[in-house]
Amino acid sequence: MSAEAEIVRVPATTMEEFDTEAFCKVGMLPGEASLVAQSIVHADLTGVFTHGSNFLPLYTNWIQVGSIDPTATPEVVSDNGATAIISARNAMGQVAGVQAMDMAIAKAKEFGIGAVGVRESNHFGAAAYYTLRALDHDAIGFCSTNGIQVMAPYGGVTPSLSNTPIAYAIPANEERPLMLDMAVSVVAAGKVALAKRKGESIPLDWALTAEGVPTDDPSIATLMAPVGGPKGYGLAVVLDALCGVLTGALFGQDVRRGGIPNTPQAMGQLFMALDVGHMMPVDEFKQRMDVQIRQMRDSDKAKGVDRIYLPGEIELERKENFLRDGIAFATEIVEDLDAMSGTLGIASLSSRL
Amino acid sequence: MSAEAEIVRVPATTMEEFDTEAFCKVGMLPGEASLVAQSIVHADLTGVFTHGSNFLPLYTNWIQVGSIDPTATPEVVSDNGATAIISARNAMGQVAGVQAMDMAIAKAKEFGIGAVGVRESNHFGAAAYYTLRALDHDAIGFCSTNGIQVMAPYGGVTPSLSNTPIAYAIPANEERPLMLDMAVSVVAAGKVALAKRKGESIPLDWALTAEGVPTDDPSIATLMAPVGGPKGYGLAVVLDALCGVLTGALFGQDVRRGGIPNTPQAMGQLFMALDVGHMMPVDEFKQRMDVQIRQMRDSDKAKGVDRIYLPGEIELERKENFLRDGIAFATEIVEDLDAMSGTLGIASLSSRL
Repeated sequence: MSAEAEIVRVPATTMEEFDTEAFCKVGMLPGEASLVAQSIVHADLTGVFTHGSNFLPLYTNWIQVGSIDPTATPEVVSDNGATAIISARNAMGQVAGVQAMDMAIAKAKEFGIGAVGVRESNHFGAAAYYTLRALDHDAIGFCSTNGIQVMAPYGGVTPSLSNTPIAYAIPANEERPLMLDMAVSVVAAGKVALAKRKGESIPLDWALTAEGVPTDDPSIATLMAPVGGPKGYGLAVVLDALCGVLTGALFGQDVRRGGIPNTPQAMGQLFMALDVGHMMPVDEFKQRMDVQIRQMRDSDKAKGVDRIYLPGEIELERKENFLRDGIAFATEIVEDLDAMSGTLGIASLSSRL
Repeated sequence: MSAEAEIVRVPATTMEEFDTEAFCKVGMLPGEASLVAQSIVHADLTGVFTHGSNFLPLYTNWIQVGSIDPTATPEVVSDNGATAIISARNAMGQVAGVQAMDMAIAKAKEFGIGAVGVRESNHFGAAAYYTLRALDHDAIGFCSTNGIQVMAPYGGVTPSLSNTPIAYAIPANEERPLMLDMAVSVVAAGKVALAKRKGESIPLDWALTAEGVPTDDPSIATLMAPVGGPKGYGLAVVLDALCGVLTGALFGQDVRRGGIPNTPQAMGQLFMALDVGHMMPVDEFKQRMDVQIRQMRDSDKAKGVDRIYLPGEIELERKENFLRDGIAFATEIVEDLDAMSGTLGIASLSSRL
């Protein structure tokens, strides 16, 4: 996607309408279809294409084969002080995720901090979408999810853990907010898949063979390497405990992949919000965040480095550019979406441009 | 410390008495001296010698030069729902840390989750000590601290961030609890210092020169490398925001090193607890944790791997061994402590064995 010739610019509003229409076509109600579309187009806008509209053909397929229930309404199964558990009842992960994050924020406004777990859930897209919702309420957002097993325990080879995201959003004053959304693997699994499609080799520290041996051949790379070895593994276990064990979801080796006919993934997520105003005057906090952010940005630079970025700065800057110029999709993503629209019987994305 | 000849076995009780006496000698009250001694001997017991009694000569010196106030009483400066802020008032970090963690646990029992920040604090030892306190209350513990600047922003060279710990403790049933306590640098700074003392080279990914160039020479290694590059950097910024910016402590480039005469470090910490029973029956949760833990341990192993460990398992197993056989201190640590006892005018550690 480096050369301009290999990309197609799509206005965010066009993309959102296309995604919404596709979700409606497979049985979602307009309000929820629009909510999920907004979430995945937000991933596109920040350049996180692995979790954006690229995922639409999979999501619609998973709904069609009965892996996800397009009309399910999540249910609060326990509401206990500053904590709650929501059953997604096999709805789209995004539908449950927005409800849970907003509930965590409401609890943070009431108690200072709130934690809401989700069970019976599905793939929820990019974690950053949820944490960013806290910012409008002058709160700090956190979320994570478990998922399908792309990592083994450190030293092991049995796929047992997701390369779970850790996501935080923290408001600032004049500066952009901090937005951290990182997987606990060295790189995203999508990077290995991309190298495989292109027939390129990968760095030896990215992934392992089924026997647990580091490999530069993406075609035999089956396990993602945890970032920092035992550190990434440790974070994955802890986050699986919080997102899966504690919420009543499936966890570890038992979380199911998406798209198995009539079989929910039954994964789990945890959403937390911390109300800044409960701990410090909001204006003071935001000004202090600006100081911290500027200290980082203004650090002396290593040789060859032009600019120092804050967590999320690349993504949020890209969002500003993509909102202005249209989202720069790789041509092949648009081709995949055009193929999908043919199957679903909606106007192709290309025809809308 | 590999050969038995290079170690000295010290019973934990002897070590605790020695540490307590040293703290009393520099002006701490017996109760608080004992509390801090317990915390640092716990680090020794788990083999985390960099944060154990090895630190005693520094702590006593910092008290003597007026960097830490040995008799200060921490004060709750705000108590707001499930959150609170404590000023350590320049007491030992451990004194404020225990108070803050216990307050977070009490809030978790009341509200389901609690968060307590500490400002005007000092170095608090090993983070795991605090999170483990949650386990007796069937709660999940989290804590972190900011600290002196041993890392630069990713791409930068100005020391701006601590290699901050992320620590979690999660209870299980028949299995040992999960105990994660990891720095966001590739390795602990102590490992570079140790290699320097021994005149050994270090792996190129551990540390950087003052110019930001990876180096295998510990004598010119001045910046710790963040784990996973931008990931470790991102975590360090976020945790500094939570521990420093949000609590009203110093943060970023402004946290002071310990031991500057009459100058507090003024660092910050964040302690959180999540009450399991608010979200799921405790017995059910613990049994599910056992299932998760056993899935990891029973994973098929990579070639050459004998055993798969859970986060904290090595440390907690070592604690059992050290409680039985005595703590296996490197001879040079005991020599340092003997030298310190001469200065303080207390009976040497060696004379107590």
